[in-house]
Amino acid sequence: MDEQQILAFAQQFDPQPFHLSDAAAKNTLFGGLAASGWHTAAITMRLLVTSGVLLQGGIIGSGGELSWPMPTRASDILHVESEVLEITPSRSRPDRGMVKLRSETRNQHGDIVQLFVAKLVVSRRTQ
Amino acid sequence: MDEQQILAFAQQFDPQPFHLSDAAAKNTLFGGLAASGWHTAAITMRLLVTSGVLLQGGIIGSGGELSWPMPTRASDILHVESEVLEITPSRSRPDRGMVKLRSETRNQHGDIVQLFVAKLVVSRRTQ
Repeated sequence: MDEQQILAFAQQFDPQPFHLSDAAAKNTLFGGLAASGWHTAAITMRLLVTSGVLLQGGIIGSGGELSWPMPTRASDILHVESEVLEITPSRSRPDRGMVKLRSETRNQHGDIVQLFVAKLVVSRRTQ
Repeated sequence: MDEQQILAFAQQFDPQPFHLSDAAAKNTLFGGLAASGWHTAAITMRLLVTSGVLLQGGIIGSGGELSWPMPTRASDILHVESEVLEITPSRSRPDRGMVKLRSETRNQHGDIVQLFVAKLVVSRRTQ
C-alpha cells in the first residue's frame, strides 16, 4: 500500500476527505489518511486470487460478513490468512457446494484491518 | 458500467477469467462477463458518497452484511436505494453513534445486484 494508491482508489470510488488528504483527515475519526475499506477489500481479493487459494471454478462469493476493525494506512503491508470453516454440498444442485471461508487481512504489525467471513459458491466433482 | 471498467478493475484487484474475458466467462457459473463483486461494492460506495447521503462526519463503515444476489454486467446502469434501519447512541462515547444503513444496489431492470446492511460510525452533536 502507498499514499498514491490510496488517493487513486478514493478519487475513483470513495471521495471523502479522510481518504483523499492527510491534512483533511487529521481532525476526523481516522486521525490521518486512511484507505477506503473497499480498497482494503479489493486488495484482500487480489491477495486471495494471486496467492493461490485454489477452489474449483474460482473464488466466487455470494456474500458474507465484513468488518474493518482498524483502518489501512499508507505505509501498511498487508497479507491475508484464510481458513475454511465449513463445506456444504448444495441440496438442489449436485454439481455445486458452498464453502464458508474466513479471511483475516493483517498489516505488518499483525493488526487485523479486515475480517471477511465469505460464503463462496464452488463447483463440485460429480461422481 | 462498461466492459472497459470491468476489465480494468479485475486486472487490478480480481484477476479471474470470468471478470476478464467474455469468452472465458461463457463456461463458468456466470455464463458471460461479470464484474467483480468488489467492483459493484466500490461503485455503490461512490454512488452513496456522491449522491448526498449526508451523515455528520462522513460515511464511515465499521462493517456489515454483504450479499451479491446477481452479477453486475457490462451494460448495467446501477443506482442505490438506502434506508436507515437503526440509530444507536454510543454508550462509551457521547460524541458518537452507530447507524445501521441498508443499501440496495439495483440495475436498470430493478434487479438487486448487491445488498449491504452496513454499520456506520457517526459523529453525534453533543448538547
